[in-house]
Amino acid sequence: MQKAEYLGNRRFEIGVGHMAQPAPDEVTLRVAYVGLCGTDLHIYHGKMDHRVHPPGIIGHEMSGTVAVLGESVKGFAVGDNVVVRPLDYCGSCPACTAGHSHVCHRLKFMGVDSTGALQSYWTVKARSLHRLPDNVDLKRGALVEPLAVACHDVARSRLRAGERAVVLGGGPIGQLIALVGKALGAHVLVSEPHALRRTYAADAGIEVFDPTGANLAEHVEAWTGSKGADVVFEVAGVPQTVQMMTKIAAVRGRICMVAIHSSQPPVDLFRFFWRELELLGARVYQAEDFDRAIELIASGQIPVDPLITSVRPLADVQRAFEMLDTGQAGMKTLLECRA
Amino acid sequence: MQKAEYLGNRRFEIGVGHMAQPAPDEVTLRVAYVGLCGTDLHIYHGKMDHRVHPPGIIGHEMSGTVAVLGESVKGFAVGDNVVVRPLDYCGSCPACTAGHSHVCHRLKFMGVDSTGALQSYWTVKARSLHRLPDNVDLKRGALVEPLAVACHDVARSRLRAGERAVVLGGGPIGQLIALVGKALGAHVLVSEPHALRRTYAADAGIEVFDPTGANLAEHVEAWTGSKGADVVFEVAGVPQTVQMMTKIAAVRGRICMVAIHSSQPPVDLFRFFWRELELLGARVYQAEDFDRAIELIASGQIPVDPLITSVRPLADVQRAFEMLDTGQAGMKTLLECRA
Ligand SMILES: [Zn+2]
Ligand SMILES: [Zn+2]
Ligand SMILES: [Zn+2]
Ligand SMILES: [Zn+2]
Repeated sequence: MQKAEYLGNRRFEIGVGHMAQPAPDEVTLRVAYVGLCGTDLHIYHGKMDHRVHPPGIIGHEMSGTVAVLGESVKGFAVGDNVVVRPLDYCGSCPACTAGHSHVCHRLKFMGVDSTGALQSYWTVKARSLHRLPDNVDLKRGALVEPLAVACHDVARSRLRAGERAVVLGGGPIGQLIALVGKALGAHVLVSEPHALRRTYAADAGIEVFDPTGANLAEHVEAWTGSKGADVVFEVAGVPQTVQMMTKIAAVRGRICMVAIHSSQPPVDLFRFFWRELELLGARVYQAEDFDRAIELIASGQIPVDPLITSVRPLADVQRAFEMLDTGQAGMKTLLECRA
Repeated sequence: MQKAEYLGNRRFEIGVGHMAQPAPDEVTLRVAYVGLCGTDLHIYHGKMDHRVHPPGIIGHEMSGTVAVLGESVKGFAVGDNVVVRPLDYCGSCPACTAGHSHVCHRLKFMGVDSTGALQSYWTVKARSLHRLPDNVDLKRGALVEPLAVACHDVARSRLRAGERAVVLGGGPIGQLIALVGKALGAHVLVSEPHALRRTYAADAGIEVFDPTGANLAEHVEAWTGSKGADVVFEVAGVPQTVQMMTKIAAVRGRICMVAIHSSQPPVDLFRFFWRELELLGARVYQAEDFDRAIELIASGQIPVDPLITSVRPLADVQRAFEMLDTGQAGMKTLLECRA
């Protein structure tokens, strides 16, 4: 079997791995496709070496087929097409006990804190599997994980049909949030400075705004009849969008913090008081977000095919990361891991 | 009739006013007691002259008796003891239309943006009145407004019986929040650096912590069995407490922003993402918060008498503000406005 090892310092190497035998509660999957995302790019930049401990196998947005079942696994059969919810939680910490295992105090994110999917076979706990219905092929299946992120963000924001939402940042997650919001009947506007990303979004039928050419706060004021946005998604992760999020939110507006801020920007806390705003942190997903994401793809409500910009063999992993790093990868690159 | 006029520049002057005739939807009250608070002190410091436009009459924490009824007012009678919810809202903006008139886009806070209670007679809209039951005397009635602030903060936080809450800042509002939280069955800890305030709180049966002598984050970790606080109230309004609020909150913990931050402090947005925290701005109160505050005093669940440090005649207004400014006023000073 093949594996792509991250060696640190922006280097990948293709090697020969061995297929692990699943423990009683595990399943060995034949990996089909693995999508690359901003987290993977962050790893490539060496920013997460303290968690990855290179050399190691990364990759967490995957689809595959059940190859070997652990002896106590129920509900799955060899040959089932599945995706993995890559969260390994402890089950006993205060967060797990309170029903929030996706934010477990000792959470291991598979593909970062433990071995990931960029290999021919991946052995995971059966509790992390979600079955793909027949009408969701394996390529589309590799989009379930990022779509589940968007479903979680939208669920956290309590966005409802008829409400108006602004998404600050039109990368893959911002666009998926917009599509999930539209699917539930909300009016969604994506603000994105880069023309190419706006084109991708507009092609997907999303209303876009160029904040470099005009004043977003004034636009939202007019767009909402001076009310402000019911929901704001902060996806960009820069100080400018942190300033904007409080400007454009309605009284009692909900601001969903999707971006990962590695430094501490100034926040207009006066505005939180003045308009009784709400800030909601959102991290990864829960099982129901995966179910919802699969349903949105299966029903055709969210066509994910246009998001798949290219599909390459696993052997091209180094080149795929170089293109992702230089902004030539489009929306989503998949690596095919089957030999 | 007597009035205390704020002239600007830390000066008050006692003068003779005239009693306004109430419009059809108004009531003229004989003012009994008016409490002074941090907002009044802020006005005294000249920080709100752009809203007060001195010379003007301030004061918003009051109790009084109905003296004259406007012709279309129903449900009140001359002689009724009442308190005023000092919010003058427009009724037609997006916030009012959405049912959040207490955060009206054109809200006038009576006693700041329009004439206040530091006078013998005060004419207000009847819709702003709440009746005091017989067992809540007029001195206690003057505490209803700050207690309603605390009721609103606790309601916004969704604090429940059995949960653990930390209040950052043990001034009058912080203490009232702690008392309201305790009354509903939560475990509440107040962190306050000033010894005198801790003494006041401890005398009221509130658990206190001195953050200058020990590490609050470690203490909360132990106090909550490593879970973190279910709810944090940020009442102090300094950068240190903004840092602390994200450190001590549990996964999915709610942080209620009570303080008014005039500058924009750095906020640990990563922690919002990582622990799925929630920040809830809270401003003034709704009618139900006044009802709840009156009920808590009437039932004896919150004994407010110990909070009343001194009662002075309106003629002492200048001296009362000087003592408030120099920290000699204790918890709450009331000015008696009846001649
Ligand atoms: Zn990802
Ligand atoms: Zn756990
Ligand atoms: Zn006040
Ligand atoms: Zn209004």
